[in-house]
Amino acid sequence: MKEYVRFEKSRQRTIGFVPTMGYLHDGHLSLIKRSKEENDVTVLSIFLNPTQFAPNEDLSKYPRDFEKDSRLALESGVDALFYPKAEELYPNNYQTYINVEALSRHLCGKSRPDHFRGVATIVSKLFNIVSPDHAYFGQKDAQQYFIIDRMAKDLNHDVNVVMCPIVREKDGLAMSSRNVYLDPQERQQALCLYRSLEKAEEAITAGERNAQKVKAIIKESIDQNPLAAIDYIETVRTETLEPVDEIEGPTLIALAVKFGKTRLLDNTIVRI
Amino acid sequence: MKEYVRFEKSRQRTIGFVPTMGYLHDGHLSLIKRSKEENDVTVLSIFLNPTQFAPNEDLSKYPRDFEKDSRLALESGVDALFYPKAEELYPNNYQTYINVEALSRHLCGKSRPDHFRGVATIVSKLFNIVSPDHAYFGQKDAQQYFIIDRMAKDLNHDVNVVMCPIVREKDGLAMSSRNVYLDPQERQQALCLYRSLEKAEEAITAGERNAQKVKAIIKESIDQNPLAAIDYIETVRTETLEPVDEIEGPTLIALAVKFGKTRLLDNTIVRI
Repeated sequence: MKEYVRFEKSRQRTIGFVPTMGYLHDGHLSLIKRSKEENDVTVLSIFLNPTQFAPNEDLSKYPRDFEKDSRLALESGVDALFYPKAEELYPNNYQTYINVEALSRHLCGKSRPDHFRGVATIVSKLFNIVSPDHAYFGQKDAQQYFIIDRMAKDLNHDVNVVMCPIVREKDGLAMSSRNVYLDPQERQQALCLYRSLEKAEEAITAGERNAQKVKAIIKESIDQNPLAAIDYIETVRTETLEPVDEIEGPTLIALAVKFGKTRLLDNTIVRI
Repeated sequence: MKEYVRFEKSRQRTIGFVPTMGYLHDGHLSLIKRSKEENDVTVLSIFLNPTQFAPNEDLSKYPRDFEKDSRLALESGVDALFYPKAEELYPNNYQTYINVEALSRHLCGKSRPDHFRGVATIVSKLFNIVSPDHAYFGQKDAQQYFIIDRMAKDLNHDVNVVMCPIVREKDGLAMSSRNVYLDPQERQQALCLYRSLEKAEEAITAGERNAQKVKAIIKESIDQNPLAAIDYIETVRTETLEPVDEIEGPTLIALAVKFGKTRLLDNTIVRI
């Protein structure tokens, strides 16, 4: 991979990078499309990163389909597919971890305390291998984006970290590799994430600025679905991810809701 | 700095890098010499890194002399001197830190628990800025070398981390910017670090393999100096820095000894 990158850079080609954990869906494909528009060469990585899963989480059953993924990569015009083994990226005696401290304590950091340490570590490693000019991440994992953007700036990685819009199923569910875990009833009720965010946006458009009230609107909407168990509903400042009392300036409204063992994320950024 | 590196790389020039905290002495100059022998271009950085000092340590009084340093850099043939400000490398809202976990707990890690987190972080940042082919560190700070070497491998930095021999004053004291802190009496007694290591080497050459006995020889030799307060005397495996009971295979014998507030390091690597 490093040789490929060195060769392309020696030809003055710009490199776009789309890091994924595989099981590609239209959300990933939108990142590839954007990368192709903005770079000479697009590198896709598929790596199910063990260090971002806690022992009790779904690493072992995370969905994978390398044949389909590589076909989709080819069809979407990816120039290079990077598909390392876990023991290549985490050899014996591996012991180096990157913490983006304050940002990792908010939102998902509360229920997944070491998750973003694993994310920051693997992305910094991949940045060192791929040396991209631009790297593309989906807004669905908004906290992940802000952490990676901060990490890249703090560690002086020479990369522009780009956030791309959430891609949704026709009925509004945010695309996620984990959606396959949902049974039909859960799948139906999972629409409440998107719908509750729409209601929050409507209220804000109508003038609501009180964060507690906005969160109450979301909670009421989700609570109508008996299979939904709310992990968090938060209104935070973008960039810092610190909770806000008033909706003012760019504000991330973020949800995590569990259906059985499946934890789904959704969010919207409002700019008032 | 990044532009300079990009330009030199575009001309296929290899880059050697010598990161320092300034107040250059012959130890630093030996690193520059080695870098010039092995690379087309040598970059020297001078940055007194605040994140590797604890609040009670000597950051504020650490010796500095930029005029002399830049003259020595010029005379020794450095091609580029990188001299960033603290607020450039640690801007507002900085929050990303790198831990090399197991290696940082041994030796100096016990009395300086966050020191190597600061070291690993700044060196990874500098590697991302300077993109060196080779980076040079002195054996005097042997634990620092092994941590940086591990960090560079773990994070996939594309750099060869090189350890250079300890450079000593004529009477044997290992060169260190901190030697200027010593008063004449302390300076005289500080020779006990080197001399005790010589005695340990003699004993090992004569057949001693028991680590406790080797450490006792060192302790006895140092204890003859009333101003010397031992922080640690350790015999550890190189690479892992784990304590050994028997001197067998490459073994680092490392000391930290305080004279008043001044903490001095010295070490030797024996290969049996």
